[in-house]
Amino acid sequence: MSTTAEARLMDGSGLARRLVEETAARAAELTRRTGKEPCLATVLVGEDPASVTYVRMKRARCEKAGIRSRHVELPATTTTEELVAALRDLSDDPDVHGILLQHPVGRHIDERAAFEAIAPEKDVDGVTTSSFASMSFGLPGFVSCTPGGIMRLLDAYDVDPAGKRAVVVGRSAILGKPAGMLLLARNATVTYCHSHTPAADLSAAVREADIVVAAVGRARFIKGEDIKPGAVVIDAGYNEGNVGDVDFEPAAERAGLITPVPGGVGPMTIATLLAQTVDAAERQLGTTTA
Amino acid sequence: MSTTAEARLMDGSGLARRLVEETAARAAELTRRTGKEPCLATVLVGEDPASVTYVRMKRARCEKAGIRSRHVELPATTTTEELVAALRDLSDDPDVHGILLQHPVGRHIDERAAFEAIAPEKDVDGVTTSSFASMSFGLPGFVSCTPGGIMRLLDAYDVDPAGKRAVVVGRSAILGKPAGMLLLARNATVTYCHSHTPAADLSAAVREADIVVAAVGRARFIKGEDIKPGAVVIDAGYNEGNVGDVDFEPAAERAGLITPVPGGVGPMTIATLLAQTVDAAERQLGTTTA
Repeated sequence: MSTTAEARLMDGSGLARRLVEETAARAAELTRRTGKEPCLATVLVGEDPASVTYVRMKRARCEKAGIRSRHVELPATTTTEELVAALRDLSDDPDVHGILLQHPVGRHIDERAAFEAIAPEKDVDGVTTSSFASMSFGLPGFVSCTPGGIMRLLDAYDVDPAGKRAVVVGRSAILGKPAGMLLLARNATVTYCHSHTPAADLSAAVREADIVVAAVGRARFIKGEDIKPGAVVIDAGYNEGNVGDVDFEPAAERAGLITPVPGGVGPMTIATLLAQTVDAAERQLGTTTA
Repeated sequence: MSTTAEARLMDGSGLARRLVEETAARAAELTRRTGKEPCLATVLVGEDPASVTYVRMKRARCEKAGIRSRHVELPATTTTEELVAALRDLSDDPDVHGILLQHPVGRHIDERAAFEAIAPEKDVDGVTTSSFASMSFGLPGFVSCTPGGIMRLLDAYDVDPAGKRAVVVGRSAILGKPAGMLLLARNATVTYCHSHTPAADLSAAVREADIVVAAVGRARFIKGEDIKPGAVVIDAGYNEGNVGDVDFEPAAERAGLITPVPGGVGPMTIATLLAQTVDAAERQLGTTTA
């Protein structure tokens, strides 16, 4: 008997597989009805090896799901203006339904300006300010893929955030901040912790939390002993050595539900990207009123 | 000796007066240099007595500060489409620098659609999703006036939110949510409480808070006994009988700094509106590079 098998594992890989199957079926149906495949444009600036790998993986997943991908590779010397122009062209292109800008882009590029060049109706990665506001106000629109994947995981395990205390550790524009807003929209009491939160306050906040979302990018940053017995622990970190942001074994001894790393949040991120690409294609090709 | 004079009062009226004086000086200078007065368009739908009073008060303050106001009155039967069209016209009008839609508008109107018809560069009341995202991401843009007034109050009393625990009670789109985002941008650890937060969790969150922002619209909802000794208490409520959201007397016995109601947050809201109107006019008339 394992000493760390107290918590139920949240099977992101399995849930993502089912979501991709549904998405592939929708893509096939859309292609059958309209003669057009849903298309995701992937934009890569430079040759950062991790970014190259991520984009290749996303494109391979698209292909398996019957989603065409159009790859745009730009040199590392690309200026903000050139990148914005490329993203505007894709925004205007009726054959492109979703746009993914692989980030981080180079430091010399104004990433926010680049994101904002993506038309909101094609922002299937949920990176524009328009998408953030939609998430925050419960308006129609796309969600950031990792927070969206987290909400799908909670739903799949019948975790209703309403009235629960949630802590989000991390406040990045496409992960921590929108994750907190989505939990708030679902009526959780939400606390944001981050790099300026004193360690004692972080511990106190985690100790009270029914739902912990770790999105800080620091290996084993969340101590297992701080997890409240029975809490739901969502680890969105993915650090060197396949290690998450939560110290898994001691956390699993206390949690009610916990995501493994890998195999938890990660697969849900890509699955959400694919699902939203087909959502976008359906809307743009006029086969849904949603 | 008063039994309730433990806390220092945060003098919103005095601070607002100074801000309005500065704003009036800027307005006069702008008019002198460009020959054009800064202009705020106020839009009122229907004849709700409270709304009529608020708009009249805002216009009177504009006049005193050397800001022209253009008043647009629409009948209660105005449709969303008609209101959107009116706001778009004002957005396109080069003689209008800021736009205020008095809200709430009637229930038959899609308020969000109306807000979104305001050009972000004229959104001096900070109600558009664009302004919300700017506040959330620390980008240039206008702030919602009440949260913006709150931040000015904190600054005036040298309260640095960084590393402090802040609780925001309420999550409306133009008060609670942006107030929390502004505090988060200033590096506070922020907790959002609201109508789905159980009473015990609300008490617990308030008890731990160094900064309490009450923005819930329920008289004396925040109990004085929950205030942490020395905390900064910002009461953005204004309920029947001139009563705030915080039970003032017991809270003042424990707080380090507290806003009175009236005379705390309220005056700062209008002063922020005026200041942002002149900011907008300066930018549109090209007299600043900000």
